[in-house]
Amino acid sequence: MTHVFDEAIALVPIAPAPEYVVRATTHPAYNNMVGPFGGVTAATVVNGIQRHPEVLGDPLALTINYAAPIAEGEWDLALEPVRTNRTNQHWTFAIRQADQTVATGTAVFGTVRDTWGDTESTPPSVPPVDDVEPSDFPDFIAWAKSYDKRFVVGGIDAKSDDSTSTYWLRDEPARPLDFPALTAMTDSFFPRAFLRHGTYMPAGTITLTTYFHATAEELAAHGARHVLATAKAARFGHGHFDQYGQIWSDDVLLATTHQLVYFKNPA
Amino acid sequence: MTHVFDEAIALVPIAPAPEYVVRATTHPAYNNMVGPFGGVTAATVVNGIQRHPEVLGDPLALTINYAAPIAEGEWDLALEPVRTNRTNQHWTFAIRQADQTVATGTAVFGTVRDTWGDTESTPPSVPPVDDVEPSDFPDFIAWAKSYDKRFVVGGIDAKSDDSTSTYWLRDEPARPLDFPALTAMTDSFFPRAFLRHGTYMPAGTITLTTYFHATAEELAAHGARHVLATAKAARFGHGHFDQYGQIWSDDVLLATTHQLVYFKNPA
Repeated sequence: MTHVFDEAIALVPIAPAPEYVVRATTHPAYNNMVGPFGGVTAATVVNGIQRHPEVLGDPLALTINYAAPIAEGEWDLALEPVRTNRTNQHWTFAIRQADQTVATGTAVFGTVRDTWGDTESTPPSVPPVDDVEPSDFPDFIAWAKSYDKRFVVGGIDAKSDDSTSTYWLRDEPARPLDFPALTAMTDSFFPRAFLRHGTYMPAGTITLTTYFHATAEELAAHGARHVLATAKAARFGHGHFDQYGQIWSDDVLLATTHQLVYFKNPA
Repeated sequence: MTHVFDEAIALVPIAPAPEYVVRATTHPAYNNMVGPFGGVTAATVVNGIQRHPEVLGDPLALTINYAAPIAEGEWDLALEPVRTNRTNQHWTFAIRQADQTVATGTAVFGTVRDTWGDTESTPPSVPPVDDVEPSDFPDFIAWAKSYDKRFVVGGIDAKSDDSTSTYWLRDEPARPLDFPALTAMTDSFFPRAFLRHGTYMPAGTITLTTYFHATAEELAAHGARHVLATAKAARFGHGHFDQYGQIWSDDVLLATTHQLVYFKNPA
């Protein structure tokens, strides 16, 4: 049986050349307040590049800019491998819907090279996943039902002077982790301004960048368990804030992620 | 007299349409080991967008992907304002040299809106700039001579298990801070792998993302003083590492920045 996430990131070929275009369809299980959950949009891009006939290696970096709301229904993804080097490959992409460009972005893929390595960051100290209760988001955040999320700090009902949220997270139902799923998880943090004010307000990601530290082998070793996700903001002001996040598998740092978010003052 | 930084980011018009193209020329004062200092390349893109006739507001976010080395000499910058919304504007760009695409990227510009604000991060505790000695980089890092840099921790001759560098930084000679100069400063951190190993090795930025928290007024208030720059890596491995950095003006967080860097094992 196909997992609902795989349904959501599925693509059909439209044109191989001169522009390589594939088509996605938004999935009701991953709807957000306005349009689809941006994490699934980003995951669909990663899926599209991974299936491109010229792809080299695995994802290293992704930047996606959400230029306009995506409406429910079909959208087209144009992918271009701009430059292929010996060990990495640079991509540009555009998402179009009804003759409008609604998202743009770039990606870097690359091969795994054996080098010295070290992880300087440390995962947050948290209780085991089974000791933390799953929580629900309000019904209007439909995509959240497609995740099992267990907040250690900074849940969606909390109000805090510290914008940090830390939680256990996995797809619901459970699904083995891969690059598209990890991509979506890096956009799973609800807007940090909600947490600072203890209330909802208009807010949405403008641009998201994720760096993939994990190898395919590390994702396979993780399996379908919960990852540990943590994020916080550095500065709020003038209608925007940033967010820095990390996704962990035990002591393996799978991804670091950053985004800039638009918000309006709470009512 | 024109400051050398303004010489380095200068642009001349090539074509207004159908593709908007301007031309830059690498400047010997900002050369790096191979090609120009990436920070000046990024700054030139910001300068180009700021001078575009359709620009809306000030920089909010920039992602630049260094796909191939840029040779000394002229390079062309193609800029496209893909979407202009009420308060923000999405850009894509490509840098071309000798019929090759050598860099790609995206930017978001926007207008300043008055909202609630708060800075959660705090600047590192450091001695005053006058109490810290300026340091020199080796001659083969030519661009570093165009900066006055005073390391509090993590200088280029240091070796540490902590990849953090924190330093006072300004243009040399002094120059009032603006968005292009701030952009360049967010790429001024030497590769974190040098600090971990206490030695040089092949390394170069693959992709850089900077979020601009500062308003033009905050930059004007900063003037030509030193900013405080700090950066560290989270994970090294498989030929890459990430870097997270912040640029401060007293207690005003001007920018947060992230990059993914390619490296080879030290000899």
